[in-house]
Amino acid sequence: MKIAILGTGMVGKTIASRLADLGNDVTIGTRNIEKTLSTDEKDLNGKSSFKEWIDEHSNIKVDTFSNAASNAEIIFNCTSGMISINALNLAGLDNLAGKLLIDIANPLDFSNGMPPSLNPANTDSLGEQIQKAFPETKVVKTLNTMNAYLMVDPSKLKGDHNVFLCGNDSEAKKTTKTILNSFGWKDDQIIDLGDITNARGTEMLLPIWLRLWNALGTPEFNFHIQKN
Amino acid sequence: MKIAILGTGMVGKTIASRLADLGNDVTIGTRNIEKTLSTDEKDLNGKSSFKEWIDEHSNIKVDTFSNAASNAEIIFNCTSGMISINALNLAGLDNLAGKLLIDIANPLDFSNGMPPSLNPANTDSLGEQIQKAFPETKVVKTLNTMNAYLMVDPSKLKGDHNVFLCGNDSEAKKTTKTILNSFGWKDDQIIDLGDITNARGTEMLLPIWLRLWNALGTPEFNFHIQKN
Repeated sequence: MKIAILGTGMVGKTIASRLADLGNDVTIGTRNIEKTLSTDEKDLNGKSSFKEWIDEHSNIKVDTFSNAASNAEIIFNCTSGMISINALNLAGLDNLAGKLLIDIANPLDFSNGMPPSLNPANTDSLGEQIQKAFPETKVVKTLNTMNAYLMVDPSKLKGDHNVFLCGNDSEAKKTTKTILNSFGWKDDQIIDLGDITNARGTEMLLPIWLRLWNALGTPEFNFHIQKN
Repeated sequence: MKIAILGTGMVGKTIASRLADLGNDVTIGTRNIEKTLSTDEKDLNGKSSFKEWIDEHSNIKVDTFSNAASNAEIIFNCTSGMISINALNLAGLDNLAGKLLIDIANPLDFSNGMPPSLNPANTDSLGEQIQKAFPETKVVKTLNTMNAYLMVDPSKLKGDHNVFLCGNDSEAKKTTKTILNSFGWKDDQIIDLGDITNARGTEMLLPIWLRLWNALGTPEFNFHIQKN
């Protein structure tokens, strides 16, 4: 499939790399190609700069938000949540219309220091705001409740754990499930919560997720819904 | 131990009954004893009225919020979250001072219909509001992330699952862990998140908890933090 990944951070790179390795035609979209390729900044894990990373991934193209979205059948929003609407506007209303947009972002607001709060939260969510701003786009919220390396390879955790999914379009959710399956998620690990308003619930997992990272001393954990 | 349970709903009754069966000296506190004993209202599960229930539990006393708190060493807040501060004020600042208060309530606001929102949320929590209003009381937030019958008997779920705990006083958390142990929680199931600000994270689990109840068709599930 032709897939655009919006965002050049750790999540975007991890998703792009996995999708490309699975045989998809992947383009990473960015605000400013020249700047993205020239920055020397290491990522959060101290890994190579974007330029070094993309040179090692010859199966992934780089383009503007707009071109990447325009040429894609499916778009992943892997931008920082607080600037997602802006990035998606740059990708373009028409370029997103009628397409599946898989939203992985969390609206973490670091402007008042640590720990971040959510903006919006409680009675609204980023997933809903995106669906409202792009009514012709089929927004599915998923994968936003775990570390990037688990998103694309759930077998990294030995025990059982879950991924949540929500959205208003059932065909779009079916396609999203196929992509999750290709990452290694089994059907019984995927919990369909319902419509896009459920993005509130999954985004509101972030405050405890961030504290658990601290309490457990590792981001290598995930939520598992235990039932009989 | 001499324990006061504030609140006569399903959570209060479930906790009171279990603590009394474990040999504790338990008093349920209520706003208006006469009204509580005279109401014919069944609980959410269609079970017996409070009067019928208390008649079957001769090992549990009923008293005012104030008397119950005054005579207790440990107080459980099992009132509805939106009226908890009011109920605790009726229990009395002095009657709560220096004591362990285990806060199980969630600030679910149903005033705008279903699903409820949280009030407060995100940058504040009920747990923190209680600690701020009762600075001499040792507030520990726990058990608020699951169905009442799992709180007092975690073995009801076959697989592994977790209970979260947070608060500012380490001795108070140690005592709370002992009570959780007596309910059947093993040490490695109890996750200490840190100080009382972590109540934000656990209270913000409620939106997805409520939607999971709907998606799974049962409240008989719990969060399990899966790690390697």
